[in-house]
Amino acid sequence: MYTESVLPVLKNLQNQICAALEAQDGASVFEADQWQSALGSGESRVLKNGAVFEQAGVNFSHVKGSAMPAAATAHRPELAGAPFEAMGVSLVVHPKNPYVPTSHANVRFFIARPEGREPVWWFGGGFDLTPFYPYEADILHWHRTAAELCKPFGEDVYPEFKKWCDDYFYLKHRGETRGVGGLFFDDLNRWDFDTCLAFIKKVGEGYTDAYIPIAALRKNTVYGERERQFQLYRRGRYVEFNLVWDRGTLFGLQSGGRTESILMSMPPLVRFEYGYEPQEGSAEARLNGFLKPRDWLAEWPER
Amino acid sequence: MYTESVLPVLKNLQNQICAALEAQDGASVFEADQWQSALGSGESRVLKNGAVFEQAGVNFSHVKGSAMPAAATAHRPELAGAPFEAMGVSLVVHPKNPYVPTSHANVRFFIARPEGREPVWWFGGGFDLTPFYPYEADILHWHRTAAELCKPFGEDVYPEFKKWCDDYFYLKHRGETRGVGGLFFDDLNRWDFDTCLAFIKKVGEGYTDAYIPIAALRKNTVYGERERQFQLYRRGRYVEFNLVWDRGTLFGLQSGGRTESILMSMPPLVRFEYGYEPQEGSAEARLNGFLKPRDWLAEWPER
Repeated sequence: MYTESVLPVLKNLQNQICAALEAQDGASVFEADQWQSALGSGESRVLKNGAVFEQAGVNFSHVKGSAMPAAATAHRPELAGAPFEAMGVSLVVHPKNPYVPTSHANVRFFIARPEGREPVWWFGGGFDLTPFYPYEADILHWHRTAAELCKPFGEDVYPEFKKWCDDYFYLKHRGETRGVGGLFFDDLNRWDFDTCLAFIKKVGEGYTDAYIPIAALRKNTVYGERERQFQLYRRGRYVEFNLVWDRGTLFGLQSGGRTESILMSMPPLVRFEYGYEPQEGSAEARLNGFLKPRDWLAEWPER
Repeated sequence: MYTESVLPVLKNLQNQICAALEAQDGASVFEADQWQSALGSGESRVLKNGAVFEQAGVNFSHVKGSAMPAAATAHRPELAGAPFEAMGVSLVVHPKNPYVPTSHANVRFFIARPEGREPVWWFGGGFDLTPFYPYEADILHWHRTAAELCKPFGEDVYPEFKKWCDDYFYLKHRGETRGVGGLFFDDLNRWDFDTCLAFIKKVGEGYTDAYIPIAALRKNTVYGERERQFQLYRRGRYVEFNLVWDRGTLFGLQSGGRTESILMSMPPLVRFEYGYEPQEGSAEARLNGFLKPRDWLAEWPER
């Protein structure tokens, strides 16, 4: 059991999310790559050069191992050497229009089966938003969607996972959050299995509910070379976060994961510029005020 | 003593290298940024949008600490907690023309002064070349220059530091070297101080001797959009190496170094593409044969 219940939920989420992004794009479609390796198998789907999405990558993967790696059992020594399975869906969307934010979501399941003991399982995941030119209405919609989906699972869930997201997606070397946050959680087994699985499903569906309306609202906003250049520059921060700080990316690359699938999160085009500072008072400078943990729903309760 | 002897050598190297690159570029000049922080001071120099060099960054830095960090004393426990100084010049050149290779060089000095003991010092550094469209003549010139400068210091120096370079600049997640190598060394104190310092000086000067003729020879080679796109794509590997594997970059970013100076190594424009494979038999596919350790001077002894 367990994995048989999780697998269809994850595969459905991959299908639903791809369908929603394709419908919103209206021009390009996803191409799928099924892969197998010594560690397991998966399906990477990528949409390139769309009308709305410059690139979107939606990965499913399912890997198995005969013995938990030491790094993964530091705080669970009883699992050292146990056989395990990990599966998940992970996605990053890089829109074309700089007024549409970049978005990321992930849901994952992990189970270890130590000999002569009950299996130990947990879930992880979340979604987070990275605007270039932030709109308060978009951020509110994003966080309201997150808060609403969490509510049936307890009043404390959203605040806790919202804070976790701010803490996780943080570029320490810049003193900036990656964006305006959302939800992040790991080691989730506080409820029974079915409840945890139901939560994961809500998170996956909530991503589409949260993101698609924002993409729809902003995709036709007129922009020029200035906004494009700022978008390319800010994408550099995404690269910095993913390659320097993201534990999933680093663990994957250093442990023999499938490089192309892991690095599907990289933006298609990126610009780096030494010493760049946006002009004071400009639309670009305004972004800085959004790159720190803020309690959006409390700050703007009436809007 | 020690640092007073090293400082002028490093500053001269920074000046000489900037002058040589400016002369070769002929259009843009370096702009200097002097900086100070809690850790020390430095001068970052960057040339942007040149005729030959799309970006060149040449950093000098000099930092001091009251106690060696634990990470730096793992294999030197006797230095734990000792006051230290570190200084160096580090540079990366991203040329405009895809037929001109990217190049990197670094020379550095480290000294710890444990209480009641003799100071402990060492040097490190090297240079390495990253072509997009490799020319055998360029690689031979690069490695011959490296081998020649090492020769007065012993016949084994070049082979040892050449191998170290191949081992260090390796993208494990790609199974590729970063480029065609050169020299890399660390913990250098096998000779007396003056000899080590003389070696460092030769390495710094050797970089210019090795690189400038290659840039001069290839900078006017006609290229088109295809070569440009391949250059932007391959620059992605540079980003991956520097952010995922380069110990200096990671240590700097994670320990509060000056972010803008550290990330001056990033290419000004980069492209990532999921699942890209060069067409078999193409000029782009040819590069793969160069991305593994090869004994260039032995392979092509007569040319």
